[in-house]
Amino acid sequence: MACCGNCFCCQCCCREEETRTPEELTILGEIRDEEDEILPRKDYESLDYDRCINEPYVEILEGMDNKKTKKYEAVRWMMVFAIGVTVGLVGLFVDFFVHLFTKIKFSVVGDSVERCSDKGCLPLSLLELLAFNMSFVFIASVLVLIEPVAAGSGIPEIKSYLNGVKIPGIVRLRTFLCKAAGVLFSVAGGLFVGKEGPMIHSGAIVGAGLPQFQSITFKRIKFDFPYFRSDRDKRDFVSAGAAAGVAAAFGAPIGGTLFSLEEGSSFWNQALTWKVLFCSMSATFTLNFFRSGINFNKWGSFQLPGLLNFGEFKCPDGDKNCHLWTAVDLAFFVLMGVVGGLLGALFNCMNKGLAKYRIRHIHPKAKFMRVLESLLVAMVTTVVIFAASMLLGECRELSSPTTHNTTSTSGSEDINSTVRQFFCTNKTYNDMATLFFNPQEAAIHQLFHQDGTFSPVTLSVFFLLYFLLACWTYGVSIPSGLFVPSLLCGAAFGRLVANILKVKLGMAIYPGTFALIGAAAFLGGVVRMTISLTVILIESTNEITYGLPIMITLMIAKWTGDFFNKGIYDIHIQLRGVPLLEWETEVELDKLTASDIMETNLTYVYPHTRVQSLVSILRTTVYHAFPVVTENRQNERDFMKGNILVSNNIRFKKSSVVTRAGEQRRRCQSMKSYPSSELRNVCDEQSAVVEPAEEGEDLLQQMLERRHAPYPNLYPDQSPSEEWTMEERFRPLTFHGLILRSQLVNLLIRGVCYAENQSSATQPRLSYAEMTEDYPRYPDIHDLDLALLNPRMIVDVTPYMNPCPYTVSPNTRISQVFNLFRTMGLRHLPVVNAVGEIVGIITRHNLTHEFLVAKLRQHYITV
Amino acid sequence: MACCGNCFCCQCCCREEETRTPEELTILGEIRDEEDEILPRKDYESLDYDRCINEPYVEILEGMDNKKTKKYEAVRWMMVFAIGVTVGLVGLFVDFFVHLFTKIKFSVVGDSVERCSDKGCLPLSLLELLAFNMSFVFIASVLVLIEPVAAGSGIPEIKSYLNGVKIPGIVRLRTFLCKAAGVLFSVAGGLFVGKEGPMIHSGAIVGAGLPQFQSITFKRIKFDFPYFRSDRDKRDFVSAGAAAGVAAAFGAPIGGTLFSLEEGSSFWNQALTWKVLFCSMSATFTLNFFRSGINFNKWGSFQLPGLLNFGEFKCPDGDKNCHLWTAVDLAFFVLMGVVGGLLGALFNCMNKGLAKYRIRHIHPKAKFMRVLESLLVAMVTTVVIFAASMLLGECRELSSPTTHNTTSTSGSEDINSTVRQFFCTNKTYNDMATLFFNPQEAAIHQLFHQDGTFSPVTLSVFFLLYFLLACWTYGVSIPSGLFVPSLLCGAAFGRLVANILKVKLGMAIYPGTFALIGAAAFLGGVVRMTISLTVILIESTNEITYGLPIMITLMIAKWTGDFFNKGIYDIHIQLRGVPLLEWETEVELDKLTASDIMETNLTYVYPHTRVQSLVSILRTTVYHAFPVVTENRQNERDFMKGNILVSNNIRFKKSSVVTRAGEQRRRCQSMKSYPSSELRNVCDEQSAVVEPAEEGEDLLQQMLERRHAPYPNLYPDQSPSEEWTMEERFRPLTFHGLILRSQLVNLLIRGVCYAENQSSATQPRLSYAEMTEDYPRYPDIHDLDLALLNPRMIVDVTPYMNPCPYTVSPNTRISQVFNLFRTMGLRHLPVVNAVGEIVGIITRHNLTHEFLVAKLRQHYITV
Repeated sequence: MACCGNCFCCQCCCREEETRTPEELTILGEIRDEEDEILPRKDYESLDYDRCINEPYVEILEGMDNKKTKKYEAVRWMMVFAIGVTVGLVGLFVDFFVHLFTKIKFSVVGDSVERCSDKGCLPLSLLELLAFNMSFVFIASVLVLIEPVAAGSGIPEIKSYLNGVKIPGIVRLRTFLCKAAGVLFSVAGGLFVGKEGPMIHSGAIVGAGLPQFQSITFKRIKFDFPYFRSDRDKRDFVSAGAAAGVAAAFGAPIGGTLFSLEEGSSFWNQALTWKVLFCSMSATFTLNFFRSGINFNKWGSFQLPGLLNFGEFKCPDGDKNCHLWTAVDLAFFVLMGVVGGLLGALFNCMNKGLAKYRIRHIHPKAKFMRVLESLLVAMVTTVVIFAASMLLGECRELSSPTTHNTTSTSGSEDINSTVRQFFCTNKTYNDMATLFFNPQEAAIHQLFHQDGTFSPVTLSVFFLLYFLLACWTYGVSIPSGLFVPSLLCGAAFGRLVANILKVKLGMAIYPGTFALIGAAAFLGGVVRMTISLTVILIESTNEITYGLPIMITLMIAKWTGDFFNKGIYDIHIQLRGVPLLEWETEVELDKLTASDIMETNLTYVYPHTRVQSLVSILRTTVYHAFPVVTENRQNERDFMKGNILVSNNIRFKKSSVVTRAGEQRRRCQSMKSYPSSELRNVCDEQSAVVEPAEEGEDLLQQMLERRHAPYPNLYPDQSPSEEWTMEERFRPLTFHGLILRSQLVNLLIRGVCYAENQSSATQPRLSYAEMTEDYPRYPDIHDLDLALLNPRMIVDVTPYMNPCPYTVSPNTRISQVFNLFRTMGLRHLPVVNAVGEIVGIITRHNLTHEFLVAKLRQHYITV
Repeated sequence: MACCGNCFCCQCCCREEETRTPEELTILGEIRDEEDEILPRKDYESLDYDRCINEPYVEILEGMDNKKTKKYEAVRWMMVFAIGVTVGLVGLFVDFFVHLFTKIKFSVVGDSVERCSDKGCLPLSLLELLAFNMSFVFIASVLVLIEPVAAGSGIPEIKSYLNGVKIPGIVRLRTFLCKAAGVLFSVAGGLFVGKEGPMIHSGAIVGAGLPQFQSITFKRIKFDFPYFRSDRDKRDFVSAGAAAGVAAAFGAPIGGTLFSLEEGSSFWNQALTWKVLFCSMSATFTLNFFRSGINFNKWGSFQLPGLLNFGEFKCPDGDKNCHLWTAVDLAFFVLMGVVGGLLGALFNCMNKGLAKYRIRHIHPKAKFMRVLESLLVAMVTTVVIFAASMLLGECRELSSPTTHNTTSTSGSEDINSTVRQFFCTNKTYNDMATLFFNPQEAAIHQLFHQDGTFSPVTLSVFFLLYFLLACWTYGVSIPSGLFVPSLLCGAAFGRLVANILKVKLGMAIYPGTFALIGAAAFLGGVVRMTISLTVILIESTNEITYGLPIMITLMIAKWTGDFFNKGIYDIHIQLRGVPLLEWETEVELDKLTASDIMETNLTYVYPHTRVQSLVSILRTTVYHAFPVVTENRQNERDFMKGNILVSNNIRFKKSSVVTRAGEQRRRCQSMKSYPSSELRNVCDEQSAVVEPAEEGEDLLQQMLERRHAPYPNLYPDQSPSEEWTMEERFRPLTFHGLILRSQLVNLLIRGVCYAENQSSATQPRLSYAEMTEDYPRYPDIHDLDLALLNPRMIVDVTPYMNPCPYTVSPNTRISQVFNLFRTMGLRHLPVVNAVGEIVGIITRHNLTHEFLVAKLRQHYITV
């Protein structure tokens, strides 16, 4: 059946043709929108965030001392710094070229318009603009063709990655190059897109790649830190890189840190937080250092705001009655939050529809269709910009430039330098052209700080056109952020509100604040981020007093929007079918327990298994981990005599059981070698009471005898025969550990096994470096040349399995299971009953909101 | 032996006279400083942060639906808002009266000095000042006598609480009143203390108390939310309250949020973060709303900085060459960070010595000794202030006030309004008096923003005197914060550096920046906080561009200081013997496993136990939780026939084992009632194969038969007889759950038990409300009237125990154990082996840094 391709691939235990699939797909189908069903679903893997402390790892551990730990930590800090600096430089690169291209474009076309407004050759100017924009967008679009993952903002992908899901190709160097270059051209191409999302994505790739690259380089000179070669380290560095991306894009290092932690941090890890903040700071200040040098020729100075800054909100000097905002304004902010939430929900709804349409009708077709769509968007956008600027603008009076601080060192240019005067006399400006015929950041500045007014009609038309075009653009096959368009759109809305209140109602308000709040409301309504967005906006305004209004607006906008649909990023994540884990489970879901949601059909391996069995398991299943178990059977002693495989397994079972008495004896024995006479006495006394150790051995033998086996055939073929009773199929299995598919394949490829007539100690041992050498792409089982393997050889997996993953009892409530899984960044969570038998496994798939809700519904029906 | 009173009380399993204590105390003694040993150690309890999902809780859960959840969430938000507002009002209250008292004091004494400098009656002025200060300090000191926990800054206590340790009286209303009123008087009394720490503590108490108060009030009108009556909710509210305290004290809502999360958050909980930020914002803006109304009569305006603000750092308009800081300055900042770290370490070292002296020589004596010490400190401080101001100051020229923005709306007063001119002519001012004879905040402002200069000698003398007196003062029995004194001290150091660089070396620097960096360096060296302090300082300066230098300075200062000793708060926590958990374990500690550190001596209860056994266990042990276990014995069937107690226990054991087959059968049965014909077919087919359920029962019976018991006496007295062998004493015990002492006492007091000849179903059931009615102070076992109990009755603890706490396997590495324990906020972590037997328990005590290091040393010796 194809169903298992549909469901999440990293789950390790669903037996394809049997119970699971029809039951659960039916349940899931019930709650899934009918349209969603037809969308293609990709297979995603989970990250192996939890440490697998097997013997090779312990070997490395034993070699660790204080000095090595410190060195390792120092390298980590250096890496973090390097990531920050690199991300800063990437931001600088993108910003520089966007500025350059935009400047050339607008100066050429602007001159042409000024010239043509007399001569009447405006269509020529339009053609010039079209030529610029469409060629830029064409380049961006072709770059995305090279690497399709580079499309969009990248935030959904990074969110998924930090949540614990690997999306193929998401942190590749090729993606990075396409994304960074692509966003440059798509922004320069005049599309209604931002560069912030792609910069966050680029930062994340730098974080993932840089430490890996280093370890490859250093391997030649015997740099013995194979530690960064794990999903755990990689994800930590990705957190840092993404934070640096936010920091560079918004000049918001704290906001960036919070963004990364909010999306990615399993738990509040002070050491990590501190590194992430340092990385963000490095990125911000690298960027500012070079920008102040290159743009303002003030090398050595850092006092620039970030790439996106909102300028200084300030009452004119001497105006004692001016307040940025008052208690009364708060009421309006709440209303604006509601409207922002509604608009955001509408935006998301429309964008979702568009995205579905694209997936169904455009993606299946030839790839150049996507390029054509991009070009169509570029053309329409250009024509709209041009036509609106020429035809719909009103001439408004310029404010006197004296009220603003022209000598400010902060590098913010004079607000009146970016107004457009198309067709207007000297003392007035064309308000529509000022908004449309400028880079988006300049337009935002205009809305925030222009003391001159915009006509309500202009603002409304601008908002409407912008809203529709931005909605269409997000999702086209180009790298495209959403922050700046949303801010601009919202700022227009906010300025409109300010216009009405100030001009129509004559209230004494500060219009810039309303524009800012409008921007926050709309952005909040679209992306539904909470704390990190609040902090990013506060940092971008560099004004702590805006904290409360921004926060309240975002809160209201989020709540209003959540009433209708999810945030835009979550929608796109859902459309891709990524099994994202939420933050918490709802209280109601605690009516379920682990046993209600776990997967009971297990494919397992024994501690000592024949090569033929392993190969057949690996080739016939798609699971990424297998529990290592022993069976509970009575007549084990008899078997032990005859069969070395069985006796090895039984011996392992015995040795893996720590008993209280055994532990106490061990402690006393270790106490004897401890140089304190008092302690030794205590233990001598105790160990005198104890029987000799051999008798303990014997006790274990006795315990074994007590068990009987209801299953006559020993170690049959792994696939259960159809005639088995349920008791046979679900025989009791004592749980001993988990082994990953990649580890098993690695063992087979490297020939780690022993012959039946030899001891398991003769099996070759792999080092940690050998185990992780192929990271992150491990060989596939189908690459294995079976001719090289002796199928009768036995593999002892116990040194390589994870001997003590976290487990839960079957009665554990969902909230506890979920917290453990989410917080520890688990991939497989075995469910073990009161006598140590594994009864099921929980994976990410079993904890998605949809699955849990379906299970809860089932619970209500059966109860 | 008294040793167990010394060690951490919440551990549940150390048998007092036996193996544990001598062994571990010896080990611990080896690494403990010899002085530390003689310090008294208090018994602290851990918080029960982890949810105990027992039957009463499930009952409540079953009644939850979507609507109730929403209502509950709404109440939570309201609570958070109320906490924020209340904390803001508390801050307002403290600030208002401190201002009032200080103003009266300084105006009276200042006038007297001005008058007397002519007349030569200065000793009279000194007496006046002494009278003011000593009476204020006397009041503060008496308040602390009433509630000794109110002494000090309160941050160590809050840190411990958020870390998971209950310190008696720490969140009581009485503590709140004494702390809030006390700090007011100690600050007004001219001591070198700040009000920030106590305000954070006050905020935490408000957070702990307000929701509790509410539920008491609402109980009358049948408000059925008994949810806030748990340590879990309380700690979340304390997080919010502490954050609000920081927010109010520093005007730093984001910093406050980070502070709380850094110290308290088990894991990054988005919902909690969002609430904490909202609470902080509420506090900040409540405070600003009332302050702008009361102080400036601008009701409805919020644009004030926090209580502690650093003023506006700004280059004079028109000065193009002025930079707040440049790349070159960064090198000096690094050096200042090193010096700050060294000074901080010295401060901490001296203060630690003083604190030890106090604990040994002052605390054991009569309480009025503490008052006398406070008065002595007050007297010396006053005399030093007075003498230094009169004798040691130099007259420096006033800067012209034109460069500063006098019309600023931010409420910052003109910097020259707080200079003191004692003995100086009109155009000059007395620099020493300006620093000493002002509120500390004003002195900080002077150092940050005064364009006039301070002589290097003045700054050095000021720094030295202040350093010594602040060090002496922190620890005296008055409520006393440390932030402002450290900032002032550090600012003097920074300004000194700036003086040297600017005047001696002629560098073009901005002195205010150096003062700020100096303040950050010294404060960082003393308190060693990382990310939250960075953010607090950035927010207090309201200038994002200071992010990098502040962060680098703090980082360097922390690293330098950590080379010598711990942060001042950690030192005081250590002196109190609080078993604080660090952030992470060191890599080296992963050489140990759970079995190396666990406690193997267990005191346990059976699922069904006689009242007499429970009482004797509860009366003879001090543990706070007991594992609920069953024994592994063979001849259980025989016992079942005769003894209802035993048969109940055996029946429980059987029913608590979920098997894979049983689970599969259950799923299929539930599937039958599921209204999908397809599914029913699948299950019908399956269940046809399955034997009838009775046979499954029989299987369990068979399993029981397979076991034999090496222990002849059934359920003997709980205390092991001396003749037992180790195998008998450490018999295998299957783990089923954990029950808390408070729960057991509650069951006994409420008479929850059944007679031997009855079924256990006849036992009365307690509701969740009844179980938590006495929260947070549960009755003691010794309050129980034994005459009311029938000792032969049997208690079924299974409905009330926590049936599925998190557990670990004995081979789990320390880092994994630690992360689980720390992140999930656990109190007891059972160690369960591969066959489900409990082999030990890990508590907070087993995871403190000292214990782990001792165990590692032992590991090295025995290996």
